[in-house]
Amino acid sequence: DDLPTPTLFTEMDTLQHDGDDMEWKESARWVKFEEKVEEGGERWSKPHVSTLTLHSLFELRTCIQTGSVLLDLEGYSLPEIVGECVFVADGLIGPELREKVSFVLLRKHRHQHKKPMHRSLADMGKSNNCPASECVCASVGLRKIPRDAEASNVLIGEVDFLDKPFVAFVRLAQATTLGGLTEVPVPTRFLFVLLGPHGKGKSYNEIGRAIATLMVDDLFSDVAYKARDRDDLIAGIDEFLDEVIVLPPGEWDPKIRIEPPKKVPSADMRDLGELVAMGELGSPLCAFPRFCGGLWLDIKRKVPWILSDFSQGFHIQSISAVLFIYLGCITNAITFGGLLGDATDNYQGVMESFLGTALAGTVFCLLGGQPLIILSSTGPILIFEKLLYEFCKSNTIDYMELRLWIGLHSCLQCLILVATDASYIIKYITRFTEEGFSSLISFIFISDAIKKMVGSFKYYPINRGFKPDYVTSYKCECIAPDQGEPFSSSPSSFSSTPSPSSFSPFYSPSSFNCLDWSQLSKKECVKYGGALLGNTCKYVPDLALMSFILFFGTYSMTVSLKKFKTSRYFPTMLRKLISDFSIFMSIMTFVGLDMLVGLDTPKLIVPTEFKPTRPDRGWLVMPFGKNPWWVYVASAVPALLVTILIFMDQQISAVIVNRKENKLKKGCGYHLDLFWVGILMAVCSFLGLPWYVAATVISIAHIDSLKMESESSAPGEQPQFLGVREQRLTGILVFVLNGVSIFLAPVLQYIPMPVLYGVFLYMGVASLAGIQFWERIKLYLMPAKHQPDFSFLRHVPLRRVHLFTLVQIICLAVLWILKSTVAAIIFPVMILGLMVVRKMMDLIFSQHDLAWLDDILLCERVRSCPHIFGASSLTPLLSHSPDGSSCTLIGCPRFPPLSLSPRLPSLLQ
Amino acid sequence: DDLPTPTLFTEMDTLQHDGDDMEWKESARWVKFEEKVEEGGERWSKPHVSTLTLHSLFELRTCIQTGSVLLDLEGYSLPEIVGECVFVADGLIGPELREKVSFVLLRKHRHQHKKPMHRSLADMGKSNNCPASECVCASVGLRKIPRDAEASNVLIGEVDFLDKPFVAFVRLAQATTLGGLTEVPVPTRFLFVLLGPHGKGKSYNEIGRAIATLMVDDLFSDVAYKARDRDDLIAGIDEFLDEVIVLPPGEWDPKIRIEPPKKVPSADMRDLGELVAMGELGSPLCAFPRFCGGLWLDIKRKVPWILSDFSQGFHIQSISAVLFIYLGCITNAITFGGLLGDATDNYQGVMESFLGTALAGTVFCLLGGQPLIILSSTGPILIFEKLLYEFCKSNTIDYMELRLWIGLHSCLQCLILVATDASYIIKYITRFTEEGFSSLISFIFISDAIKKMVGSFKYYPINRGFKPDYVTSYKCECIAPDQGEPFSSSPSSFSSTPSPSSFSPFYSPSSFNCLDWSQLSKKECVKYGGALLGNTCKYVPDLALMSFILFFGTYSMTVSLKKFKTSRYFPTMLRKLISDFSIFMSIMTFVGLDMLVGLDTPKLIVPTEFKPTRPDRGWLVMPFGKNPWWVYVASAVPALLVTILIFMDQQISAVIVNRKENKLKKGCGYHLDLFWVGILMAVCSFLGLPWYVAATVISIAHIDSLKMESESSAPGEQPQFLGVREQRLTGILVFVLNGVSIFLAPVLQYIPMPVLYGVFLYMGVASLAGIQFWERIKLYLMPAKHQPDFSFLRHVPLRRVHLFTLVQIICLAVLWILKSTVAAIIFPVMILGLMVVRKMMDLIFSQHDLAWLDDILLCERVRSCPHIFGASSLTPLLSHSPDGSSCTLIGCPRFPPLSLSPRLPSLLQ
Repeated sequence: DDLPTPTLFTEMDTLQHDGDDMEWKESARWVKFEEKVEEGGERWSKPHVSTLTLHSLFELRTCIQTGSVLLDLEGYSLPEIVGECVFVADGLIGPELREKVSFVLLRKHRHQHKKPMHRSLADMGKSNNCPASECVCASVGLRKIPRDAEASNVLIGEVDFLDKPFVAFVRLAQATTLGGLTEVPVPTRFLFVLLGPHGKGKSYNEIGRAIATLMVDDLFSDVAYKARDRDDLIAGIDEFLDEVIVLPPGEWDPKIRIEPPKKVPSADMRDLGELVAMGELGSPLCAFPRFCGGLWLDIKRKVPWILSDFSQGFHIQSISAVLFIYLGCITNAITFGGLLGDATDNYQGVMESFLGTALAGTVFCLLGGQPLIILSSTGPILIFEKLLYEFCKSNTIDYMELRLWIGLHSCLQCLILVATDASYIIKYITRFTEEGFSSLISFIFISDAIKKMVGSFKYYPINRGFKPDYVTSYKCECIAPDQGEPFSSSPSSFSSTPSPSSFSPFYSPSSFNCLDWSQLSKKECVKYGGALLGNTCKYVPDLALMSFILFFGTYSMTVSLKKFKTSRYFPTMLRKLISDFSIFMSIMTFVGLDMLVGLDTPKLIVPTEFKPTRPDRGWLVMPFGKNPWWVYVASAVPALLVTILIFMDQQISAVIVNRKENKLKKGCGYHLDLFWVGILMAVCSFLGLPWYVAATVISIAHIDSLKMESESSAPGEQPQFLGVREQRLTGILVFVLNGVSIFLAPVLQYIPMPVLYGVFLYMGVASLAGIQFWERIKLYLMPAKHQPDFSFLRHVPLRRVHLFTLVQIICLAVLWILKSTVAAIIFPVMILGLMVVRKMMDLIFSQHDLAWLDDILLCERVRSCPHIFGASSLTPLLSHSPDGSSCTLIGCPRFPPLSLSPRLPSLLQ
Repeated sequence: DDLPTPTLFTEMDTLQHDGDDMEWKESARWVKFEEKVEEGGERWSKPHVSTLTLHSLFELRTCIQTGSVLLDLEGYSLPEIVGECVFVADGLIGPELREKVSFVLLRKHRHQHKKPMHRSLADMGKSNNCPASECVCASVGLRKIPRDAEASNVLIGEVDFLDKPFVAFVRLAQATTLGGLTEVPVPTRFLFVLLGPHGKGKSYNEIGRAIATLMVDDLFSDVAYKARDRDDLIAGIDEFLDEVIVLPPGEWDPKIRIEPPKKVPSADMRDLGELVAMGELGSPLCAFPRFCGGLWLDIKRKVPWILSDFSQGFHIQSISAVLFIYLGCITNAITFGGLLGDATDNYQGVMESFLGTALAGTVFCLLGGQPLIILSSTGPILIFEKLLYEFCKSNTIDYMELRLWIGLHSCLQCLILVATDASYIIKYITRFTEEGFSSLISFIFISDAIKKMVGSFKYYPINRGFKPDYVTSYKCECIAPDQGEPFSSSPSSFSSTPSPSSFSPFYSPSSFNCLDWSQLSKKECVKYGGALLGNTCKYVPDLALMSFILFFGTYSMTVSLKKFKTSRYFPTMLRKLISDFSIFMSIMTFVGLDMLVGLDTPKLIVPTEFKPTRPDRGWLVMPFGKNPWWVYVASAVPALLVTILIFMDQQISAVIVNRKENKLKKGCGYHLDLFWVGILMAVCSFLGLPWYVAATVISIAHIDSLKMESESSAPGEQPQFLGVREQRLTGILVFVLNGVSIFLAPVLQYIPMPVLYGVFLYMGVASLAGIQFWERIKLYLMPAKHQPDFSFLRHVPLRRVHLFTLVQIICLAVLWILKSTVAAIIFPVMILGLMVVRKMMDLIFSQHDLAWLDDILLCERVRSCPHIFGASSLTPLLSHSPDGSSCTLIGCPRFPPLSLSPRLPSLLQ
């Protein structure tokens, strides 16, 4: 008898008198929350929490005590059931009234429909909104009721022939479809009837609402299904009464409809007291290292998901994710490609950057442990390459060959780290370190975007003193260096450029020897050694301001559209679509605006020919022949630095991606990730492509664009964050698109760079959202009484919270200063510094405070699970897994477990 | 004994054991809502609605039934009171326990302080936050407790020497300050003690919260003060129980702290059932006309406020209001001045506009019936002047003299309208008409602001084809018309301008006869007949985009800062200040940005010399001598049109300003308003200044910037909108500032016009907010389930609401088309059309629907109060005033009045 009871749909109908005619009209319904028919408005109210009066609950109790209770009645039609009810109520109502009561109860039912009234039962399940195996779709109004749902009908009416109420509570032996009794095609199991004399309609109505609310209560509906007699029902009511929440009348207006809460305690929770799970922290990292053990576990964990890694990618959300991340990646590739080209005299340029991004990204997303991670060039690697190239140039060592050897050594070292399960070090990376790192990267993103924007004001200076009226006095002329001999002063510049410019409309070969200087463009003029004279030469009109408008417009439009998801306008699906495609729509809008205005703003230019940027290098780097033999060995030393760089950068980004808030279900793969990063290093070194490692901000953006929310099942239930679409398809597509971008050049050339900087700014700002550190910084600016009700604020004194935040801010400031100097190269190593600072904080903060503000260090937990927290009931509880290899923080009881409260009747003495 | 009982402050202390030591520690407090001490966080929680368990309320009932109840105990110290309690409880606890109980009850009390622990009583009332006459300021945490407040103390503890609970409820004969018992310096009146054996602490705590919540309940505290015996208290608890609101446990999580509602039903409401006042609609306009009766009533209504009309103006909010409205007025004056100057060949120009605005505005705000109204030129008057001037020119009639006569006739007609109480016509102006008109004016504001912005793209065309590299090919040169004879082709233009331009740096008198054409500015070049040659002549760089940035920036910053009031950051006072001064701060920011960039954006230029714009007119217009005599008489006909214009424009704006949502307390003055508008017409006509009438949007902005909110009295209580600072000071200051603006020119010239257009856009958008029509338009875009819970949606079917809105939209569209043609001159007359449409809607919509969506037409009400609504309990109720001269819609019972519910005990049978 311990089978789960079906979900109950409850409908309440009230008796309407129209002259002598009577009919039952639906007045409210419950799936989980109450929806009322707004009489005047002829519509359903929003689902809301049923606020009852205590009065009505006690009256209901009396009704069940005195009325007829028929359990497991056999009856297959309404007249049969009604007849039985009336018969049983023999002692309660006189025989002359029985017929009248039956007559009233068999009046026809009118339901509140939004759509045309009658839709045949054949339509059931045809609606395409829910998988047929799980639910029937109600034809009207209600979207989802589970397939096995049953109905309970509440009938409330005033009649003139009764002088005391007639009450019946019926449970049918079998759920039966009783004609038009119920709005949705769900068979009826329960029937509650209350008919009474005129004048107490309001009170009857409240009793009806009370029984309806009880019927949809998890615990009471269980009682109703299993009750053996009247007393069981009474006990069920008492149990319900014992748990109700009471609002004082002076502090709450009963007319306010209370919105359904984000989460309601499940029936089990209500039984067991309140243990708030804090999420599993243990995970495979608590295991003890053994040779390649981690890698093996990672592969074992990943293999079962191979199919779903692709199938789960087929969703409209993936399209927006691919577009968004693609644009982020390509902008990054161009930026880093340009910088690398500058730093290495084009040994690695934009073309190499494109190719490397495509290659490394595709392989990693296809085979890596965490395919949601997006690989990219990062700052520290760029600085390393720059220093290495300068070293090579001044010591006449071949750069590409040395770099290949460093890559090979580094790859080997990475594989050693994989084999020795070194990635377990990340268990020391707590929220403190994680947030410090990701905030810093976000700030770098934001500051880079703004710097680039400000740069365009330098690149396109505004003529601030321009007076429209004196337009006649503004000009810029190219003056020949010496009017007689135009070429004498700049012979060298000429020799290296046999053709001045094939683009110049002013240049014609025949006039080569008698150049018309006034017809030359600015660049040509400079090239041929001419002088630019005039007051407009150094100014560029409109472009800087237009760039600003594009930059800021893209950013703000994206932010606004993202927020649109929570607005009231348009249907939920459309809003979700707008929110998902917000970045795409913003980019399109401002690309359109830019085309409309037609100004010569800087555009995204991708290489269109497949050849190395520097003509004197090929696509393959040979390992031997250019450097002395000892270089091959000595390169192991710089390789060690690269390995540390890569390892830290990769693993902390992976920790951030895998953090528990993202609710990833397919598990992590730190060892497998590192394995592929190492292999790709070797491959890229052979091909002379840049090295790649996990990029924090773009990876976070990737995850954000793939988040899933539950569709609400009962009206009014809030959608819950379910997790992320974990699959390999979006990542692979992004990088394949990167690879074929050289063919997309005709399309991409319409995208202005300021628009992409706007996207970068958005990425930086968005990745700050939801970081607790950031929330805590905001607390500094809020008076205590306006602070949000964060759980850590309930348990840790504000001054301790502020102190913790301050330490983080100082760490961040130090890191920021470091990364602005050459020390940037050891920047990822600084993460180790953060971890040391965190360890020292154990001295300042109690473990209780740290448990709320940060995580407890895992290995501390393993060693001292039983006694670090003492017996205080306010601190987290720990449990070991049976084999002792991992431990989990199972929960944090905010209140000591409740002793089950005694039954109400004992209180009423 | 029917004196109001004092406000109760309730503090709950729980007994803390620290080894053998014990002390009472404050754990929660109530003024109206509960504030809990967050143990871990060492802070006060936010005020929230006390959610109790039914359990605890019944246990409390048992406690009061079985414990000792001491009413009107004489006792001046805690030991005395405790002694008495213990003595009375003789039968309940053994003599050996008495001493122990006394010992525990006399332990010291520790309170939850934010500030240093001890502040002497001498500091009481020193805090400057509240007027000394009304309240004492609690030294810590709590800001305001009424001066006559008394405390009730709840003491809850577990002790090891008791085996059953010891309960005492004490009411002192006199409220007495009992040492450190209470956190705030308020004398104690009630004491509730619950000591019991160990192990049931949680349950005792809930009982304590229950009695504390009861003590701050309006009705129960009344009972507690007046109870004669234990049974009265029990009855009070039962009454409370009978009214509590019950939330089902499965639909609500008791851990959620419920924010205090916007409004709670007052104790009276709870007693009387639920009548929701809809605001008084009747007002003096229901009286029947008699000669000058309305004017006389207006004056009688206004005189008592003379002093407060000035004293209430002294508030910081007034400063922001003056700055805001001043900038609005001055921009308006310049715009209309410029347009009038164009239309009348400078007979009325910017100078006249300034002077007229200052004069009319000052007089009206000083003496008018509704000093919150801001006078301004309006579109219809502008069109009338334009047509009149063209008529005069083509018929060689003297414009200024004719205009004077029209003004005099119109003044006379206005005075006749005043004397005949014609303003009573506005009782036909319902929400329908009001919203139609104000929406239209808002749209005109918005569209004008945007048009001006777009205009600057035409005025400063962008060179869209500009290629930065070919800067050398861009120039604009002034070419002499005929190189040999520079002046021959344009002798006429020269004769009227003896000096080309004293500003030109290029011009020197000595070169007058051998003009260097290449040195001339654009304007000079055109003036002397030169030709402009080149590809940049018609372009102006940067200015259009900069204007756009200033325009849009000012608008968005104002909107954001306005919203800042509801953010969580910074203390409430600062936020309010930022919100009040949002427009000023935005203007300052963007004026600063403009100065920083230094571009030659168009600036606000005000006239600096006090002389008529046209040199050939003086400051006084003579009535006779220039036109034939019949013109003096005939001018009465156009005057009639002007009068209708003025009357409708003035009165509908006044209706909008006086609408009930603004909660004005000093009453309206339609007749007095019209009187002064008429007089000012005559005066302005004599001085040759434009005519003025109430400006809807600026008046709404004026009101919005003067809105008052209550400071919350109990923690957690929501501030209520109290009304508007009704005074004459801000208006007068605005117009005096307008007058002296000619001296402020050096400051004002830094304000770019696009910034002011941004302010205009803000004004237009802001005046749309809060218009129900606008809310109803938004409903079209919302799925029914996301629509806000407007009361009209509960009572009127959505399709009827949509139909009503559609009619309004169509009316608005027709008006918009009309005002875009010459018909604009009869535009205010169209309001009459709106009123007719409204009257016809009585045929389509039921009075019930109209009562919710609009107002019932007043005179309908007067005629048919008793029977239009029938007996339905869902429709508004009307009441006549005793003399039958006015009627008032007193309320709209959303629920039929409740019959007072029977006492709870009768339910428990």
